Amino acid sequence: MVCVSFNLLPPASCIQGLALCRFKLVTPAQLSRGYYGALCLDTTNLSQDVLHSSSVMPDIPFLPFSILLGVLGILCVGFTVYWSHHWLDGFAWDGSAQMFNWHPVLMVTGMLVLYGAAALVYRVPLSWQGSKLPWKLVHASLTLTASIIVVLGLVAVFEYHNVQGIPNMYSLHSWVGLLAVLLFFCQWLMGFSSFLLPWAPIWFRALYKPIHVFFGSAILSLVVAACISGIIEKLFFRLSKSATPYSMLPTEAVFGNVLGMLILVFALLVLWALARPAWKRPDVNSEDTQEPLLHGAR
Amino acid sequence: MVCVSFNLLPPASCIQGLALCRFKLVTPAQLSRGYYGALCLDTTNLSQDVLHSSSVMPDIPFLPFSILLGVLGILCVGFTVYWSHHWLDGFAWDGSAQMFNWHPVLMVTGMLVLYGAAALVYRVPLSWQGSKLPWKLVHASLTLTASIIVVLGLVAVFEYHNVQGIPNMYSLHSWVGLLAVLLFFCQWLMGFSSFLLPWAPIWFRALYKPIHVFFGSAILSLVVAACISGIIEKLFFRLSKSATPYSMLPTEAVFGNVLGMLILVFALLVLWALARPAWKRPDVNSEDTQEPLLHGAR
Repeated sequence: MVCVSFNLLPPASCIQGLALCRFKLVTPAQLSRGYYGALCLDTTNLSQDVLHSSSVMPDIPFLPFSILLGVLGILCVGFTVYWSHHWLDGFAWDGSAQMFNWHPVLMVTGMLVLYGAAALVYRVPLSWQGSKLPWKLVHASLTLTASIIVVLGLVAVFEYHNVQGIPNMYSLHSWVGLLAVLLFFCQWLMGFSSFLLPWAPIWFRALYKPIHVFFGSAILSLVVAACISGIIEKLFFRLSKSATPYSMLPTEAVFGNVLGMLILVFALLVLWALARPAWKRPDVNSEDTQEPLLHGAR
Repeated sequence: MVCVSFNLLPPASCIQGLALCRFKLVTPAQLSRGYYGALCLDTTNLSQDVLHSSSVMPDIPFLPFSILLGVLGILCVGFTVYWSHHWLDGFAWDGSAQMFNWHPVLMVTGMLVLYGAAALVYRVPLSWQGSKLPWKLVHASLTLTASIIVVLGLVAVFEYHNVQGIPNMYSLHSWVGLLAVLLFFCQWLMGFSSFLLPWAPIWFRALYKPIHVFFGSAILSLVVAACISGIIEKLFFRLSKSATPYSMLPTEAVFGNVLGMLILVFALLVLWALARPAWKRPDVNSEDTQEPLLHGAR
């Protein structure tokens, strides 16, 4: 029996005036292994309107974008460290306010910058060729590192609260932040057990993948809300007793606001890169996409 | 000359065990008008793995979802009104603190609920058939109504600040909120002039559409950050002078926190509905997609 397999390449492949439609006659057995072939259609003679109407975007190279994003990420962490170091008496791990200072630094590092980098692993063009497994391991390692940093960041704030007799989890910032962290851990566990361990059936992986992808972006939106509200909370705590209140915009307030905007821009750029069709891995239904870490007898 | 046109139907079409691939031999002239035909492939004999591996999701009917979303939207606005009415002395339009109370109510109504409803117009299955023009008008009308409400919401806070001698635009909440509003107005103007007025060329519309779609979700993420930080700001203002501070979680604090979480859930559901492939309008490249309000001699 002969069936038809098809798979559209992303718009990036059309940019040189050549539309590729992966297309071949294959057997059901080949289909079940995710097999596909390719038929090239030379569309150089088609009207410009047709080419442009298929959501062709100007080509933006990934490398300069990721350098810009890296600089922004370093600035986000650097600004947070500088705020703690310059205005908040630096760092310690002793239950004091200096222990609290680790909380924003570790959360911005783990939940924003490392998490953003991990989300973009499959947008690296180098990852589109060959086995997906090494890239899955990079993605899992980055998110695992982020989760360890996040746990330390949570310990810093809970320990500080407990030692100082401040109630935990009362502010909206803590509610939003905890929701983001819980979803992040669920996301990691579900991703690891679905895409790396061999026991999840292919249909479940296919079912869960768009959920994993959606929550990848959704968690980042929650992280932004948590960061912005955390910065405001800290500025109100700090400047309500100050001779120059928040409304007079002392240097520390401007610094905190600028940090918030840097975090916003970083997260928006990550969300944009995730949503950009031209940077999505082309072979979403290939055999390799469903390659687990361990090959079980499924 | 004969060319090939292809267009995959969304996963929803595959649910009954029938994968549809729109496919036909057409001329370049037909292609330039967005013409496509259909070829049905009966895949009922294919293995379950293959069907499931093409990102098939369980069918969720849009109507119950939109009712749930409507209830959540009403709750968001209702909670904001109740907060102002019950704890903040109600409403007025006289430069007093009661005038400020219009700000959260109008911003949640315009920038969150109406904006969210407007974003989901093209996800209504009824909009998938026939001309897209009436739905474009619904989308533009809802966002126009939202923008009028948002302007009133901004007037409420600026007028209150000016009358009371409070500086404008100092807090991170106001920076994030203003960015969201500015992007929202740019989005409206660009959308109106690109998709409704006849002067924008098709290639520009195709180029701008994914940008419009991305910023649709991005602005909603900014709105969430602005709402959460606004609620925290208000709770700190209110409860820093209270006998029961924020950290003791008085009823008003719990109410404000719950409102924040309702806003979060509403926005996440809208973002999820926007991202869900099965609810996207199938004929994204059809002639109708590029139908402007006025048919100019382009």
